[in-house]
Amino acid sequence: MRWDGDSSGTFYILDQTLLPAEEREIPLNSVPEVADAIRRLAVRGAPAIGIAAAYGLVVAARELPDDTPMEDALRSLDEATTQLGATRPTAVNLKWALNRMAPRWRSGACTSLPALREALLEEARAIHREDREACEAMAQNAAYLVRDGGTYLTHCNAGSLATGGIGTALGVFHHAARQGKRITVYADETRPLLQGARLTSWELLRAGIEVVLICDSAAASTLLYGSVDAVFVGADRIAANGDIANKLGTLSVALAAARRGVPFYVVAPSSTFDLNLASGSEIPIEDRSPAEVTDGFAARTTPDGVKVKNPAFDVTPADLITGIVTERGVILSPETSTVAAILLS
Amino acid sequence: MRWDGDSSGTFYILDQTLLPAEEREIPLNSVPEVADAIRRLAVRGAPAIGIAAAYGLVVAARELPDDTPMEDALRSLDEATTQLGATRPTAVNLKWALNRMAPRWRSGACTSLPALREALLEEARAIHREDREACEAMAQNAAYLVRDGGTYLTHCNAGSLATGGIGTALGVFHHAARQGKRITVYADETRPLLQGARLTSWELLRAGIEVVLICDSAAASTLLYGSVDAVFVGADRIAANGDIANKLGTLSVALAAARRGVPFYVVAPSSTFDLNLASGSEIPIEDRSPAEVTDGFAARTTPDGVKVKNPAFDVTPADLITGIVTERGVILSPETSTVAAILLS
Repeated sequence: MRWDGDSSGTFYILDQTLLPAEEREIPLNSVPEVADAIRRLAVRGAPAIGIAAAYGLVVAARELPDDTPMEDALRSLDEATTQLGATRPTAVNLKWALNRMAPRWRSGACTSLPALREALLEEARAIHREDREACEAMAQNAAYLVRDGGTYLTHCNAGSLATGGIGTALGVFHHAARQGKRITVYADETRPLLQGARLTSWELLRAGIEVVLICDSAAASTLLYGSVDAVFVGADRIAANGDIANKLGTLSVALAAARRGVPFYVVAPSSTFDLNLASGSEIPIEDRSPAEVTDGFAARTTPDGVKVKNPAFDVTPADLITGIVTERGVILSPETSTVAAILLS
Repeated sequence: MRWDGDSSGTFYILDQTLLPAEEREIPLNSVPEVADAIRRLAVRGAPAIGIAAAYGLVVAARELPDDTPMEDALRSLDEATTQLGATRPTAVNLKWALNRMAPRWRSGACTSLPALREALLEEARAIHREDREACEAMAQNAAYLVRDGGTYLTHCNAGSLATGGIGTALGVFHHAARQGKRITVYADETRPLLQGARLTSWELLRAGIEVVLICDSAAASTLLYGSVDAVFVGADRIAANGDIANKLGTLSVALAAARRGVPFYVVAPSSTFDLNLASGSEIPIEDRSPAEVTDGFAARTTPDGVKVKNPAFDVTPADLITGIVTERGVILSPETSTVAAILLS
């Protein structure tokens, strides 16, 4: 994901729906194109869609005719914010990034369109850069949790494709590899859209990290009867009490880890926390198209007319989480007080 | 699955790999054809593969030239037993059925090939009929566990396709429907080969039972945050202490059910018990081809060279199981003594 050039430049993403068969960068030239890319998961991962939404506002400003009155420009940015904010409901980073962009035009500090475009690009680049730095900080903070020769398990894709940097959960593995630790990572395939099979295994293979792909259903027996040292996953939203929403299936992994006593770590930047929500039961869970389940394979694999429920995320209660690794430090035994101690300090 | 005609007749199965797109009956005309059908899951489900193996021995005897000396005929049946018994390691019903067929030729009671063929067909038909009766008895025994208006969850396919009758877990639902109870069943899709998406949803839709298909990963949140009354699954082997091996992913369902306090029932005939094994850790777990995971979709969905681990089953510890429904009664709180009380009485 990159912005090429100055504020009249172009926003490019790697289209993740084509991986691993094809690595293709595509330009996103309008707000509807950015919104569509987020909705169809061409760009995905909580931090990444926050960054994409921020650049989406730069695209919105760039697309305005140069003679647009400032009042109309501000209204266009409000509309773009609404459009981008409505793409996906669960990851709070999206709203966080849009909220952070807002003062740049709502404050009235920019009195010309060129200045406004420049200010928006500056803020989007800052969000992007800070996310990259947060990934590094999280990886450093989690380094003591990873041992040379260790075996780990992850679900979905929380790597460089999902963030502005080396990733959250996968950033921990990338950092361990940079330190010369030899590790093995079990990657859940992550139905229905196979982010683990398509993206995590691709990313870890490229980094020279040993990866073993398993069906989501194999995570439980791998944890209970195997020798996994710890689980690392990302998050899409974290409530004040430490409950997390993450890709559907994370809850199963956490239950199995708890049964065996395998530590279960969540790795997420502070932009993923939503302290307005007391617990995970308040997090909105996105329902996606049944076709992702019924027509994912070469042919339709279900009888016509079958009902399907296809939630994209689930909520893992804080008591199943050993620690949440943030760029500000590790929250051990997350609950309202321990979360606040790190997040509000 | 049916034997058409007398002992010179033909063994037919419904090729389950083609469902739900196509309902095609295929004849299995030799022992290698029967073995291959079991191995590639054209016929599957613990009780069903036991019945298929029994008919496989009838096929073996039918294929012998009429002038085969009895000594050679008996050796051929021994070889067929070895070949059929080696197809799949986990479901004990396969070995159980072959062991039950053995006295028919090893006893020496049959002194001519026609008599032997007749005796083998008689025994295979008895195994088939008794399994059908066991399904009915299990459904009756479990009837008090299903309420009108209730919501249930199942994993994989333990229905009429997997047995000689109305099924084990799904038999409970079929029976409830016959009694006029209106129920809703969540069916896990069951990666990698989608027995839930392809077979269970097909079977329940045909029976007029409300079915909602979910990804395997959705079972945990459906159980924790939904209103599921109970889980019913089948089993491929049950150890003396009540630990069960069943389709990969059953363990995750059991962990989620236990967390929420949703009753978790296993439905299996006594032929699924292996009292020679003290616990589930002794049950051999079949590893299947990585291609089931990497190439299940239209195109390869993984990077070349990724390692894959593809176990077909997992073991659910007895303490997560509320009860095991058999044709002889319900074993509540299964452990070595309660299992023995029902199985050895």
